[in-house]
Amino acid sequence: MKPVSAERALSRITALLGAEACLVKQDARAPYEHGPRYGAGTALCVARPADVASAAELMRLCAADRISLVPQGANTGLVAAASPDNSGLQVILSMERLKGVIDIDPVDGVIQAWAGTRLSELNQALEPHGLCFPIDLGADPSVGGMLAANTGGARLIRYGDVRHNTLGLQALLMEPAGELLDLNNRLRKNNTGPDWKQLFIGSAGSYGIVTQAVLQTHPLPQQTATALIVPNSLPVGLQLLQDAERRFGDFLSAFEGMSRNAMESVLHHLPQVIAPFNPLPPYALLIELSSSAPASAHCNLEHLFMPWLERHLEQGNILDAVVDKPESLWRIRHAISDSIKQEGKIVAFDIAVARSHLPAFRTAAIELVERDFAGAVVCDFGHWGDGGLHFNLVIPPTHAQQFLPARIDALRTAIYDLVVRDYRGSFSAEHGIGPFNQHYYDRYLSTQKQALAARLQPAFDPYYLLGNTRFS
Amino acid sequence: MKPVSAERALSRITALLGAEACLVKQDARAPYEHGPRYGAGTALCVARPADVASAAELMRLCAADRISLVPQGANTGLVAAASPDNSGLQVILSMERLKGVIDIDPVDGVIQAWAGTRLSELNQALEPHGLCFPIDLGADPSVGGMLAANTGGARLIRYGDVRHNTLGLQALLMEPAGELLDLNNRLRKNNTGPDWKQLFIGSAGSYGIVTQAVLQTHPLPQQTATALIVPNSLPVGLQLLQDAERRFGDFLSAFEGMSRNAMESVLHHLPQVIAPFNPLPPYALLIELSSSAPASAHCNLEHLFMPWLERHLEQGNILDAVVDKPESLWRIRHAISDSIKQEGKIVAFDIAVARSHLPAFRTAAIELVERDFAGAVVCDFGHWGDGGLHFNLVIPPTHAQQFLPARIDALRTAIYDLVVRDYRGSFSAEHGIGPFNQHYYDRYLSTQKQALAARLQPAFDPYYLLGNTRFS
Repeated sequence: MKPVSAERALSRITALLGAEACLVKQDARAPYEHGPRYGAGTALCVARPADVASAAELMRLCAADRISLVPQGANTGLVAAASPDNSGLQVILSMERLKGVIDIDPVDGVIQAWAGTRLSELNQALEPHGLCFPIDLGADPSVGGMLAANTGGARLIRYGDVRHNTLGLQALLMEPAGELLDLNNRLRKNNTGPDWKQLFIGSAGSYGIVTQAVLQTHPLPQQTATALIVPNSLPVGLQLLQDAERRFGDFLSAFEGMSRNAMESVLHHLPQVIAPFNPLPPYALLIELSSSAPASAHCNLEHLFMPWLERHLEQGNILDAVVDKPESLWRIRHAISDSIKQEGKIVAFDIAVARSHLPAFRTAAIELVERDFAGAVVCDFGHWGDGGLHFNLVIPPTHAQQFLPARIDALRTAIYDLVVRDYRGSFSAEHGIGPFNQHYYDRYLSTQKQALAARLQPAFDPYYLLGNTRFS
Repeated sequence: MKPVSAERALSRITALLGAEACLVKQDARAPYEHGPRYGAGTALCVARPADVASAAELMRLCAADRISLVPQGANTGLVAAASPDNSGLQVILSMERLKGVIDIDPVDGVIQAWAGTRLSELNQALEPHGLCFPIDLGADPSVGGMLAANTGGARLIRYGDVRHNTLGLQALLMEPAGELLDLNNRLRKNNTGPDWKQLFIGSAGSYGIVTQAVLQTHPLPQQTATALIVPNSLPVGLQLLQDAERRFGDFLSAFEGMSRNAMESVLHHLPQVIAPFNPLPPYALLIELSSSAPASAHCNLEHLFMPWLERHLEQGNILDAVVDKPESLWRIRHAISDSIKQEGKIVAFDIAVARSHLPAFRTAAIELVERDFAGAVVCDFGHWGDGGLHFNLVIPPTHAQQFLPARIDALRTAIYDLVVRDYRGSFSAEHGIGPFNQHYYDRYLSTQKQALAARLQPAFDPYYLLGNTRFS
């Protein structure tokens, strides 16, 4: 039985929003209660306000009754930050109805949109202006979700993360409850005090709920040149990255790696994909150049790219290469996540190390798995350009009994220890913390940083009512 | 006579650092007590610790005695943030001896350096690696100063500001006093909690004193193409900016504007500079393309640039153009600040508006000056690429008597009101707040933002001992 305050809050929320904007029944709540990978709980209700005033009123109501609010955008996050716990007492605040593009200014190169707007909707609206919001992901998150997680993606090497491309935002505060803090800004240079918006980016909604954002856009690419290459070794891969950056710094938009196991899985599950190499090499790198300058005699990326590839082939740095349309080559890269899922249970690691440590870390991690967790199959891929690695393991059904939850926990801790303690890397490069990574946040973040978080907490959310990520 | 606590602090600081690292005599203090443009006070002493441990001990000592500390880097800031007040009771903490490059990793493309290291020293150390830290300024600030002010510069359109290029930092806290907070990071993707370092960037040392930083570098340009053009009108200037961005987005590294008065002043004071146009037009735009790809048949910026210029000349968008070596054309641009100083008293405005508002704002501002402040000569120049304007006025000696301090204050307020209230712009685009802009911070920043600052203050500096900028 729910406590009186929860029952009272529920009836007040229903009265505030109306029944259609407050989902109480189990089947209506269900799609909001489960994350796409982790996180499944039971909410008191799902509140879907249609405007900021209702959302603010909801926050005041929750603050008064000490009811916890879990903000949710498009529910595409991978660390359960937008999922309720099992108490049945948390309210999911879905931002999905606070959506739409508010304004596009092609001269400023900015787009202003409500938090519930999807990445794909931004790009559809920008395309007629020759612009894009260049965050490149497998999912289609909302603006608010992207800001809350500081989303990265495959083209960060060129465009930076969401933080780099956020000029301003508005956020609803929990302290004072329901106050709308206006940090909207269209300026590219503005140093009139601390940049408060930074506290709301990458903080999983813990300091406030983003309601809208002003984002910087970029010209749509007009030409690309793409190649899949086999480096002589992983250390040579780093040399190629460095050389490509010096030579093509302005154009280099992706430098992605794929292991043989990852590619093999794609070919196995998507028979329409043609093997790029025969036999498959242990590792391949996908290199993409792109430019907003249309191809011309004086700026032609394919013609610029080919002699570079040939030179490295001649020097033996590249053992094999395929040059093709980007769609064909990216298809393999983009299909990895879905393909490997069909091989067994996935134990996913979203990690990053300094780029110079990539080969050494990967070697050490594979050795660790083979030595202590035999049976798990490494199907890694990653973003060499920014040191990000999706060091995914597949537990085949034949080995499921050897990988019960406690052993998987041990495996996770062993890999994260290697990343964080031996290589000073990140145990969450792109996905954030959320309940899924909470244990590792508590384990790895210095007491100093946790103390800093504890000192700031009262200023934003003294009763820990926002979300279910704890930074202190 | 100084209070007992100040006298006691002075003797303790001298005992701590040694006499050579604690400047007490007036003539030794003097160079640290005056800012390059504004700010002149009297310090209790200038402390010049040679290591972090001494700086930390100094902070503990000052915290215990409630002595105010003013951190100072290279003392190049233009808003007096690093100058002491007139009390004779503040200690200047000069970071100039905490200097030097700690490490360069060319694969990661990062440089780690102590706070006292100069921008020019970073670039000297990076050059052999084919890298640079691409903040382009008239001054030569320290790393700590650049972070404290979130420095911009002329090439922000291409590389972003200092914040965009800071991966990590270490900072000494005042609460708990002397604690060294380690936020060093070489990762380009790392979302393990809030990005605390953001609080120390652009906050004028108010939340802590940066002791070292890890900065992201960029490949040195290998080719440039530069032109000085006369746009048909200012609105057409915006069309040219937009067209250049679409066409050359990857290469556009500067898009700077200069008024006739500004150019005239340079020609008058530097007779070796040859007039680019005869007669001088009302306004000219300096456009620079650059690339880290060496010039080749398939990537040649000059050959790419020329047809664009010709097309716009034919269409009448450009009335005149000069293509020359970058040094020749930038010389005029870089000489403006020094030249106009010789014409009279300068009333400088470091402002920004959304790029789409640039022509309308400039017209309105000139009208305002001509109507209400006749005699002041507008010698503006600015960064069109990012909406930044140095809307500088010269008060010729003939009019000095009509521009006494109260009238100059009225002039400042009138211009800032126009920027902030009518055009939603920034009254400090690049220089920050400091005591010089404190009055305008208090006037324009919303009570909400000031309340937010007030809530955070106790977490970092409960007794307001750090610096002399007040965000609440």
